[in-house]
Amino acid sequence: MSKITPRTLSGFMELLPAPQQQMERFLQVLRETYALFGFTPLDTPLVESADILLAKGGGETEKQIYRFQKGDADLALRFDLTVPLAKYVALHAGELSFPFRRFQIGKVYRGERAQRGRFREFYQADIDVIGDGKLDVANEAEIPAVIYSTFTRLGLEKFRIRVNNRKILNGFYAILGLTDRSGEIMRTVDKLEKIGADKVRELLTGELGIDSGAADEILRFIAITGTNAEVLTALESWRGRNERFDLGLDELATVVKYLAAFGVPETHFAVDLTIARGLDYYTGTVYETVMLDHPEIGSICSGGRYDNLAEYYTDRQLPGVGISIGVTRLFYVLQEQGLLNPDLPTAPADVLILPMTQDLTAAATAATFLRGQGIRTQIYTEARKMKAKMGYADKLGIPYAAFLGEDEIAAGQITVKDMQTGEQITSGLEEAAARIRAGLAAKNEGRLILG
Amino acid sequence: MSKITPRTLSGFMELLPAPQQQMERFLQVLRETYALFGFTPLDTPLVESADILLAKGGGETEKQIYRFQKGDADLALRFDLTVPLAKYVALHAGELSFPFRRFQIGKVYRGERAQRGRFREFYQADIDVIGDGKLDVANEAEIPAVIYSTFTRLGLEKFRIRVNNRKILNGFYAILGLTDRSGEIMRTVDKLEKIGADKVRELLTGELGIDSGAADEILRFIAITGTNAEVLTALESWRGRNERFDLGLDELATVVKYLAAFGVPETHFAVDLTIARGLDYYTGTVYETVMLDHPEIGSICSGGRYDNLAEYYTDRQLPGVGISIGVTRLFYVLQEQGLLNPDLPTAPADVLILPMTQDLTAAATAATFLRGQGIRTQIYTEARKMKAKMGYADKLGIPYAAFLGEDEIAAGQITVKDMQTGEQITSGLEEAAARIRAGLAAKNEGRLILG
Repeated sequence: MSKITPRTLSGFMELLPAPQQQMERFLQVLRETYALFGFTPLDTPLVESADILLAKGGGETEKQIYRFQKGDADLALRFDLTVPLAKYVALHAGELSFPFRRFQIGKVYRGERAQRGRFREFYQADIDVIGDGKLDVANEAEIPAVIYSTFTRLGLEKFRIRVNNRKILNGFYAILGLTDRSGEIMRTVDKLEKIGADKVRELLTGELGIDSGAADEILRFIAITGTNAEVLTALESWRGRNERFDLGLDELATVVKYLAAFGVPETHFAVDLTIARGLDYYTGTVYETVMLDHPEIGSICSGGRYDNLAEYYTDRQLPGVGISIGVTRLFYVLQEQGLLNPDLPTAPADVLILPMTQDLTAAATAATFLRGQGIRTQIYTEARKMKAKMGYADKLGIPYAAFLGEDEIAAGQITVKDMQTGEQITSGLEEAAARIRAGLAAKNEGRLILG
Repeated sequence: MSKITPRTLSGFMELLPAPQQQMERFLQVLRETYALFGFTPLDTPLVESADILLAKGGGETEKQIYRFQKGDADLALRFDLTVPLAKYVALHAGELSFPFRRFQIGKVYRGERAQRGRFREFYQADIDVIGDGKLDVANEAEIPAVIYSTFTRLGLEKFRIRVNNRKILNGFYAILGLTDRSGEIMRTVDKLEKIGADKVRELLTGELGIDSGAADEILRFIAITGTNAEVLTALESWRGRNERFDLGLDELATVVKYLAAFGVPETHFAVDLTIARGLDYYTGTVYETVMLDHPEIGSICSGGRYDNLAEYYTDRQLPGVGISIGVTRLFYVLQEQGLLNPDLPTAPADVLILPMTQDLTAAATAATFLRGQGIRTQIYTEARKMKAKMGYADKLGIPYAAFLGEDEIAAGQITVKDMQTGEQITSGLEEAAARIRAGLAAKNEGRLILG
């Protein structure tokens, strides 16, 4: 028979078992942390009507979307989790309780040009809080706590959450009489870190045609740094000149005020007036998160406050605040940088039972007992040399091998070898299980992300 | 602005938050149980090259598959998890250790005619053990233990695993000189339960043209019932007439022999000579699982032994054994039948903190503490009347409401109300957390599936 060469599409991540176990840990931490903050899991279809997904339209989206016909239906794969959320909330609003807090971790699809580290199928992990008509700024204050907990639980230490408020920016540009230009200005200012202040000034006065006095004030404004208190104090000097600015400053002060109570240390949080987030629809607090030792990765968790989630589907005003982690790309980068802890177990089993008799009854009994104790157990079933069996355990990184020979069976015992230390102990099953469980707890203690 | 009516495609399950929580529990039990048996999680792309997915071809598959172009690429959505597994193993064989044990829980797509209870996007939950060249029958003996543990952990009590062996069937038909017809005969015999013995005999002698003596022997054969030991004894009377039959009988005896050691009670297991499984590629043990009180649902977990997983992609002989649960359909039916335990918590949070002061510092501090204790906590942030806030907790089924008024804050205490009993206790945070944790453990104790 002629064969079809097996292959996986470029841009589609397909992991070997060991890294897949790391990915599972990653996703499990996200699920648990998001749930701790009272977000409910959602799971919407990966396929939707194309008109639903493309309601907003827009160039990149239309180009990148996977769209296809099936019968009469014009379908597409979702390209993010926000549009399906908007549809979900608009469709089910009558059955939901507001504020509606949901998380969703799922794959999305973008037919981008294939490129190293760019994925066409990738996981996003989103949380959003949606209000009905209004939503208190306290929700914006809580988001840094979710980000901080998430990355801390993943093991990451050196990161910082950067926060700004779009009302402050918009208000500031209104003060300068540049309201109409604020969008372009913000997109330019957003490049500060990449291209430097001089180049930003050049773009402002050149391409954008801003007069040089205003450009200077913009640069002075975005150069405000210091502790959160210092930045807030500096911003106070503009108070009273624009309502929106004042409101934004109040909101920012509220976010900063609750940080400590929400358990976010100042070391991991910075008000940063340069960030705006590209998307037009943010209207209040905006967030970015950077790894301090790897700024080149860019933001690993971003989001913000918006005023109208589902305007394409309903007249109901649904303000919200949300953040998103691009899981697949982050995982890929962590892997590339060697930042995934190699010491955490990635084996399919905790114990590999090696039967040394033809009859497997004792092995099955032991496996059933260990599984009942929560220990992931495999029986090595194939008739091969002991060396090959041990090689199997070794290659998979299974932490314990358990031998069941005639002597052990007769004595109702089992010999368990710690594959790392080589220590080998013969004991009853209960004692063995307790020892294995304690050993596993220690082995699983480490952080997933080093850095 | 003109609105697009929000809707979800027919045949695509989209759950409200409470049933989604039940679904999450369901999936979590599957993940945990599969992992306990030493299966490693895999996650392959939902999109593959159409030629990979359609390597085997075949009518229904080609009709139902979602296939589309993107640029030059001819793509399709996977319609099961077996074909992607075959591709994965063929592609990565050099990097895998055999036996390779994997589980995968993921969505698959079939553009079937829309029908109540039929889904176009649905979860399958598969396990497979793949050998390199050969695979010991012990793996076939272990599968009933996985099925039994899975459904027992889900809470189901009244179910039975039905087992047969294709070699016994094929050998038997060889004894009758009907080898060439065994496929059609088995497909006919498979209908026994639905249409009865008389109708099966009619089909055999009529449509299939089997002579009446052979038809009688077929009906006598498939009528063999009794305990496992009785069935095995009855089958012994054919031994020695066909090698394949004898081998199948040995395999079946092995599967039965290890049942008790693998913790599967006889009540939940039956050798059943009428089942064959539709698919042609099973070559040894085959499995079906039925709910005793709901036979109309059909098999809720099926699978079997096959000799060649990846013949379309590689010359390497990769025998295996696997089972699959059609999760979405099973979940739907359980929901319809009212068999999902309504007493298990489905709320997004365990505790809703109701701040009774303008300042939320104390609420944030309490929430942070409770979350640190593993308690899912939400702060009710909106300025509404107490009645509305309590209604929110009530509607979502949040088990505990926690009040933080000025008295509590001054005393470093919190008042926690058990929403079910109405009991209200004011205490320190640590004591409250311990009481909540104990209460949650009790509330979460029940089975997910009743039946």
